[in-house]
Amino acid sequence: MKMQPLILSKDQERRLLAGHCWVFSNEVDQRATPLKALEPGQAVSIRSDHDRWIGYGYVNPHSLICARVVSRDPAQPLSPALWLNRIHTALSLRERLYEQPFYRLIFGESDGLPGLIVDRYGDVLVLQITTAGIERAQGEIIAALEQILRPQAIILRNDCAVRELEGLTQDVAVVLGQPDDRLVLIENGLEFAVSPLTGQKTGWFFDQSENRTRLARYGVGRRVLDVCSYVGAWGLRAAALGAEQVVCVDSSHSALEQVADNAARNQFSQRVEGRHGDAFEVLRTLKDEGARFETLILDPPAFIKRRKDDKEGTQAYLRLNRLAIELLEPGGLLVTSSCSYHMSREGFIRTVQAAARRAGRMIQVLEAGQQGPDHPVHPAIPETAYLKTLFVRVLPTF
Amino acid sequence: MKMQPLILSKDQERRLLAGHCWVFSNEVDQRATPLKALEPGQAVSIRSDHDRWIGYGYVNPHSLICARVVSRDPAQPLSPALWLNRIHTALSLRERLYEQPFYRLIFGESDGLPGLIVDRYGDVLVLQITTAGIERAQGEIIAALEQILRPQAIILRNDCAVRELEGLTQDVAVVLGQPDDRLVLIENGLEFAVSPLTGQKTGWFFDQSENRTRLARYGVGRRVLDVCSYVGAWGLRAAALGAEQVVCVDSSHSALEQVADNAARNQFSQRVEGRHGDAFEVLRTLKDEGARFETLILDPPAFIKRRKDDKEGTQAYLRLNRLAIELLEPGGLLVTSSCSYHMSREGFIRTVQAAARRAGRMIQVLEAGQQGPDHPVHPAIPETAYLKTLFVRVLPTF
Repeated sequence: MKMQPLILSKDQERRLLAGHCWVFSNEVDQRATPLKALEPGQAVSIRSDHDRWIGYGYVNPHSLICARVVSRDPAQPLSPALWLNRIHTALSLRERLYEQPFYRLIFGESDGLPGLIVDRYGDVLVLQITTAGIERAQGEIIAALEQILRPQAIILRNDCAVRELEGLTQDVAVVLGQPDDRLVLIENGLEFAVSPLTGQKTGWFFDQSENRTRLARYGVGRRVLDVCSYVGAWGLRAAALGAEQVVCVDSSHSALEQVADNAARNQFSQRVEGRHGDAFEVLRTLKDEGARFETLILDPPAFIKRRKDDKEGTQAYLRLNRLAIELLEPGGLLVTSSCSYHMSREGFIRTVQAAARRAGRMIQVLEAGQQGPDHPVHPAIPETAYLKTLFVRVLPTF
Repeated sequence: MKMQPLILSKDQERRLLAGHCWVFSNEVDQRATPLKALEPGQAVSIRSDHDRWIGYGYVNPHSLICARVVSRDPAQPLSPALWLNRIHTALSLRERLYEQPFYRLIFGESDGLPGLIVDRYGDVLVLQITTAGIERAQGEIIAALEQILRPQAIILRNDCAVRELEGLTQDVAVVLGQPDDRLVLIENGLEFAVSPLTGQKTGWFFDQSENRTRLARYGVGRRVLDVCSYVGAWGLRAAALGAEQVVCVDSSHSALEQVADNAARNQFSQRVEGRHGDAFEVLRTLKDEGARFETLILDPPAFIKRRKDDKEGTQAYLRLNRLAIELLEPGGLLVTSSCSYHMSREGFIRTVQAAARRAGRMIQVLEAGQQGPDHPVHPAIPETAYLKTLFVRVLPTF
């Protein structure tokens, strides 16, 4: 079968040769290879206007990113052999890094599989497919995952808004086995029940796992506040590190029920409590009550989802971090995160510093963490580096 | 004693109120408070043109940075009480973080003591004084260190070029005790002999300690190359993690002698060897010899010492990293550092990616590390964040 070519316009190959894998629709020579003639997800062979080889990829004429390079090896077109190869390469990294099979197995572009996320919960795999190209190869990819990992169940969590950009519908489906909406994972010695069918994202935020483990480096003190706690991953880690009182704040009743369940699983029920409400409101109330904490964790959802939300979102980070700093004991530890790609690392440090100054405090940044190594960064694609987690000491002096 | 005022020009207080501590000479109202009337290192009380309180600091009329804020507390002028306070605050962080007394105790601006570095080697303290203000308070500060830490010896390593900016001379002096030029420190279970009087900087690079410890997370494989090894801190760590053959490359014969000594101390002599020469030349020779490594560590001196060295320095990083990637086995680990402040984190990632592409490889950045928490970052002073250490996987596929 002869593969369809996709020819770039003049001088549009540089970013791709430098390692990026996205082709924008205005970079294609549409006279030579009209996008309209191609089907969403169709495999193509990408070349420069001078007939220089770029790679194999897939297209979507309906998307601003009209093609993505998947393979730069002329001997490896999109095929079952390529999927097997990519999955083996990704798995070998995780098996080297993780003692137990709970991690992000495939992180899209960074693992050479743009459009595919696979989270591994032991023998349950949860996939998220975000491009027409992967959707079209779905059967082959699932077969490859089955061949390599022999999972009991595979779930498609295709209920993510980003699929709309590719003209794909949103849904949740089980494609293998009969998974329960409750499975148990182990993170660094703690047990958590999570919901792969109905929980946020695929049920768990693996991207913070490394940072939670690193909390041990800094210690937590007696009283800990875990803001936007979800099912309690940070809060229970703090309890495991010796905190006497952990308050988990979340706006979801069902998340707080899971916090209680997870606390019980780990014998922390006496030390972990939930507090329902909006993060900003709860922090203000706690301040009015005169509460103080030795460690405060902020792990909110992205406040800057799109570039145009920049100003408003930065203000939200500023307010939330200021409230947090005002609740900390002198010398206390603030662990503060932003998962907004549009908030740069430097911008986030500036914002937290501005929050500290408004609270009349001086701070030190002890560490600027990021997503764990099961979410590797593609060095040519800045968007693959999105998580910032700062470990900040609020100074007792000023 | 009435303190001399230093009055800022109109609208020059914003950066200082935001937490920065440097005052540039063009920001001072020299009609109200002429710098020439002040002595190098003299204490001042800094105020805005509207008489708004900024803080206590010290001046140097001969320096571009003509003053630095040291205290923002109206009750805490520059005095023995302030030095004691600052040292206690810094020590409480390190005592929380480190099991053994080997760390940077004071990191200048970040610890509220601009112009002062103190490295702690057990009961030997090594100081570096880089401003006239700290030089003037030297007696009080040494007394405060003695009172709190009761050290056996205190060494002044004032042989750093940056002192010239403040019109200070360079020298090395012993101000307490009779220290030997050989002391032993323990880093995460390994023993190293270092030279506090004649070694590089204060004898040891504490800033990489955390990253060396983190190498355990990634593993090292059988064969490891440690480029710009100095006394072998990285190489011996690799040996401790199970490497069968570690080659330490350095251009200094005495550093390689210390590598051999340190290897023997830790029973690694059979597995650690030195190789003398220029890093670039040795890497080229190894390539010609057909050598391959599972892990390669690059920890060179700063290639971009001043902004004007940017282009040339970036090229040097590019060449060195390309040579390194070409020596790595597929799937191998590159641990690559830049301690040049003028090389940004993003710029360094881009440079290593460019090196990989020139070597025909694709890479993943597993972690972008930084200096350890005994070198905290002052969030209003970008210059305090200078070290980048990337943990990079060279992909077997492309």
